[in-house]
Amino acid sequence: MRGIVAGLLAALALAPAAFAQAPTSTPTGPLSIESQGSFFVGGRDIASEDLSTLPAYAPAGTITVDQMYVQYQIPAGGTAATPVVLIHGCCLTGTTWETTPDGRMGWAEYFTRRGQPTYVVDQVRRGRSAGDPSGVNAVRKGAPVERLPTVFSASHESAWAIFRFGTAFPQTFPDLQFPIEAQAEFWKQMVPDYLASMPTPNPTVPALAALAQKLQGAVLISHSQSGIYPFQTAALETKGVAGIISVEPGACPDAAGDLAPYRGIPIMVLFGDYVEQFPRWAPRLVACRAFVEKVNAAGGKASLVVLPDQGIRGNSHMLMQDRNNLQIAGMLVDWMKANVKR
Amino acid sequence: MRGIVAGLLAALALAPAAFAQAPTSTPTGPLSIESQGSFFVGGRDIASEDLSTLPAYAPAGTITVDQMYVQYQIPAGGTAATPVVLIHGCCLTGTTWETTPDGRMGWAEYFTRRGQPTYVVDQVRRGRSAGDPSGVNAVRKGAPVERLPTVFSASHESAWAIFRFGTAFPQTFPDLQFPIEAQAEFWKQMVPDYLASMPTPNPTVPALAALAQKLQGAVLISHSQSGIYPFQTAALETKGVAGIISVEPGACPDAAGDLAPYRGIPIMVLFGDYVEQFPRWAPRLVACRAFVEKVNAAGGKASLVVLPDQGIRGNSHMLMQDRNNLQIAGMLVDWMKANVKR
Repeated sequence: MRGIVAGLLAALALAPAAFAQAPTSTPTGPLSIESQGSFFVGGRDIASEDLSTLPAYAPAGTITVDQMYVQYQIPAGGTAATPVVLIHGCCLTGTTWETTPDGRMGWAEYFTRRGQPTYVVDQVRRGRSAGDPSGVNAVRKGAPVERLPTVFSASHESAWAIFRFGTAFPQTFPDLQFPIEAQAEFWKQMVPDYLASMPTPNPTVPALAALAQKLQGAVLISHSQSGIYPFQTAALETKGVAGIISVEPGACPDAAGDLAPYRGIPIMVLFGDYVEQFPRWAPRLVACRAFVEKVNAAGGKASLVVLPDQGIRGNSHMLMQDRNNLQIAGMLVDWMKANVKR
Repeated sequence: MRGIVAGLLAALALAPAAFAQAPTSTPTGPLSIESQGSFFVGGRDIASEDLSTLPAYAPAGTITVDQMYVQYQIPAGGTAATPVVLIHGCCLTGTTWETTPDGRMGWAEYFTRRGQPTYVVDQVRRGRSAGDPSGVNAVRKGAPVERLPTVFSASHESAWAIFRFGTAFPQTFPDLQFPIEAQAEFWKQMVPDYLASMPTPNPTVPALAALAQKLQGAVLISHSQSGIYPFQTAALETKGVAGIISVEPGACPDAAGDLAPYRGIPIMVLFGDYVEQFPRWAPRLVACRAFVEKVNAAGGKASLVVLPDQGIRGNSHMLMQDRNNLQIAGMLVDWMKANVKR
């Protein structure tokens, strides 16, 4: 009986009652900004003997690493609204949320225009968040190659199926919402990724915890590789985590693990189209579904939204850049208004 | 006689007639933005066998490199005003022009509030402009260490004198305008620099030329390491270079070189305080002075402004972050209004 009730509750929670169908029109006209700027969260000083091999710069000294870059805009009248923190995924930076590759409005501006203070981060050791040249310079000076950082770039060809533009490069789905004609601009957004050189949890996670507390409550919106970070942040410290929207996460928390940190937080896990066709993605959806069910069975309020189940088709893994990106963002705003109490 | 006339002309040109003394008040109240966003300029596809050493990402494929990230804001009513392009220096990114380390308004927002469309770039292979992991991965797989990129970070200790916070770490000048109490936040802005791995001119230069033409005229405002870039851009293509403001350049063009590209462009070279006390900086000021004199003797309209000569004291190399940063920015706006015809 207990199992049946839990199953019913889970089914209800999975129903996308708060996920409205009406398309959202693009906001236009001048945008009124109360304040904007950037700052860093986290960071630690390290001593190194290998900062440089050039005569103009000393090899030994102190640098600061593991800080997280945060760029923000607070719309006029928006100081009381719930802030959103936008966290990009693998091989990308905060540009993910800015202008789309084909020149349309991104989610960062959209949330701002809808009245929410918006914070865009660059993950630690990526983009405007500093790296460390010590490993490269040590090897140049004779240290074993194991000192080199583990770094990779996703090629256009391999990213194709990861981002679900099509099943294999360069094939595309006929109803694909991603603006594939602007793919050249999208490739320019990609950067080398040092993730595998870093400890678990990634230093981005405690930085997100510090940011969420600084903001006195924020909805953490993650994507792909960073999909798990808001959950790891809540496991570290629930204070400040007013909500979690995990867009196409690379992983959800283990459904068999400790779910206590997540029970009090409104959670949405969001997937686009074609997931079942990809061996990389299909098991992630299955695992996230199990997580959402278990959290709800434990008294939480989590939703799993798979867009085709809502009649919304053709969305890629980069759904914040898809042609219907603002329709989806509008649905998220509605969900936050209905579910998030800061 | 000819020499005397040229000398007089040069002296007149060096006189800072257009450089007003009145301090500028900080603009306040909501900022009205007509449009904002980001895009990339330049870039080329390369094939690599060394993109990854991880099983989850293919080693071989195509990536895009040498694109330059550009983030912009166009203020309401500002579409007819002359755009400014802000180009950061060594070991830094576009954060240079954002919020100062102690939390005040930076030059990017200031120029926007003064009505000018403002474009902030990340130099090629730094910040949000992609790098290339191939060298590191090739060496990891057995290639000689010469394949490694040349990369350096400036330590806090060595940056101290480069940025002229004091003659040596950790001493500071008593009247220093840099907010040294916020140095920890400034160190977080610093990133590894791949400049020495790149060809001359740096691919940032043709990207700036493309950007200036795209904007149909812009004032290129450079700093330190990038100080020479606007000049190199003009040497490549004068079209689109409506003006040059070179803040504390690491180098000016050779005064004995071809000055033809610079004669038709309003130019300001700007230095802060304490320059004479630093062996790194004093010769650069001398060389820039010679360049300005020669350009003017050749019919150009260049100014060299050394702030202490204007009675403005205490400015570091990071004068866009100094306590009087908006006073200086206000002077630049006045200079642009008086001198730049788009």
